[in-house]
Amino acid sequence: MTTIIRIEDPQDLRISAYRNVRDRDLARDNDTFIAEGKVVLSVLFAARRFPPLSALVLENRLDGVSDVLSTAPSDMPVYVASQSVMDAIAGFHIHRGILALAQRTPPPSPAALLEKLPADALVVVLVGIANHDNVGAIFRNAAAFEADAVLLDQTCCDPLYRKAIRVSVGAALKVPFARGGSAGELADSLAQHGFNAVALSPSGAESLSAVTPSGRTAILLGTEGEGLPPALMQRLRTVRIPMSQSFDSLNVATASAIALHRLGRFRD
Amino acid sequence: MTTIIRIEDPQDLRISAYRNVRDRDLARDNDTFIAEGKVVLSVLFAARRFPPLSALVLENRLDGVSDVLSTAPSDMPVYVASQSVMDAIAGFHIHRGILALAQRTPPPSPAALLEKLPADALVVVLVGIANHDNVGAIFRNAAAFEADAVLLDQTCCDPLYRKAIRVSVGAALKVPFARGGSAGELADSLAQHGFNAVALSPSGAESLSAVTPSGRTAILLGTEGEGLPPALMQRLRTVRIPMSQSFDSLNVATASAIALHRLGRFRD
Repeated sequence: MTTIIRIEDPQDLRISAYRNVRDRDLARDNDTFIAEGKVVLSVLFAARRFPPLSALVLENRLDGVSDVLSTAPSDMPVYVASQSVMDAIAGFHIHRGILALAQRTPPPSPAALLEKLPADALVVVLVGIANHDNVGAIFRNAAAFEADAVLLDQTCCDPLYRKAIRVSVGAALKVPFARGGSAGELADSLAQHGFNAVALSPSGAESLSAVTPSGRTAILLGTEGEGLPPALMQRLRTVRIPMSQSFDSLNVATASAIALHRLGRFRD
Repeated sequence: MTTIIRIEDPQDLRISAYRNVRDRDLARDNDTFIAEGKVVLSVLFAARRFPPLSALVLENRLDGVSDVLSTAPSDMPVYVASQSVMDAIAGFHIHRGILALAQRTPPPSPAALLEKLPADALVVVLVGIANHDNVGAIFRNAAAFEADAVLLDQTCCDPLYRKAIRVSVGAALKVPFARGGSAGELADSLAQHGFNAVALSPSGAESLSAVTPSGRTAILLGTEGEGLPPALMQRLRTVRIPMSQSFDSLNVATASAIALHRLGRFRD
């Protein structure tokens, strides 16, 4: 049985980790992170990649989230507060009614992650994507098409940022990822681990449909503005999604979905 | 030559249409709409579907947007204001630095729009999509893959809402659309005009790849939660994008992109 603890004082030390959630987002605490919303928390508890430490629930939402809380570790404390106490804790209006604090386990290095993947693995590799909506949406697509992992170069944003987790509908808590190194170092590591890497770009030399995945495959994506670095484009096979010449290219997360649909395990 | 008019007083009647932009969004004025940002305005001026009435530009951005303004009608007034005057006019901080007021031309009825389309037309039909981000993103995809039109049932939101235009990167100002009627009425109209309609749904009977477009094709999309109405699913061919059974379905705009990629004129 989950332990329910009522919080009356926003300064209560037991919920100090939830205080001023937005400032905390910016501070990029490296030990823990906060996730929000019923669907995201159900993924957090089911995926078991990041140990949940506690939950903070709006009192009038407790009944509605009891099914999700029943999937949490039985010794995880559940703090319950009124709307005014909850808003005072978080520093803004929490309309989703449920937050959880989870422990950030040390992410593997890209090489360590690639090493463990199966012989037919499909990975998504992000370069310079610093927008939390895009990173979150790419994780959502990676989960929908069952990509094996996401690699992020050192200039990408953190997938465990609260908004990225929310946009990913929890996929950032489920799909294995590694973050670090330059784009060139990631490409080296992919080559060392036998991945066929394709760089997706509006200026790609071949159509996406020309790629027949076999063995280990990696899809590389850059920012919508700059795209992938020219040095990377020169050393890799480059592919494009055929589209209008007279309109702005696709959103990068949308492009990832089309590539995962065509190259992933559900292709047909 | 564009006429540049300096505005010193936020109450100046010449720029009253720009006052309190956010309240105006909510009021859904049916005669005019506001678009924002350099890229969006370049589409507004190039597409010529909606007559631009004026622009309001931050004084220190004037040089940076002169190329875009040179594509506007030569008799269109360009109002220029300082940041503080501009923010006082709009009611919030305008960081994009350029707004335009345009005239909303009466949209055609769905039937009138379908009537005019070519024999190999591809249209996207939206049912119940009330989220401006999703509608904007679907227009962006429709433009990228050169769909001929977007139809929206009466419960969809307005594509000329400021945020929908922004997310569409201007595509809402370019891709022809019609809005009105129930989902059933739209399906009737599609049938009367010889469209092969496919309803996209996670529970679709066939894989998307089973569809070979010929003649006029329509892709129908519903909300992520409810999906398309059961009555509509029963009368139409239903298709699914094959994906993981263990993870939440794709975002509806993402699904539209995959369908447009597979069924549109750039398919390969």
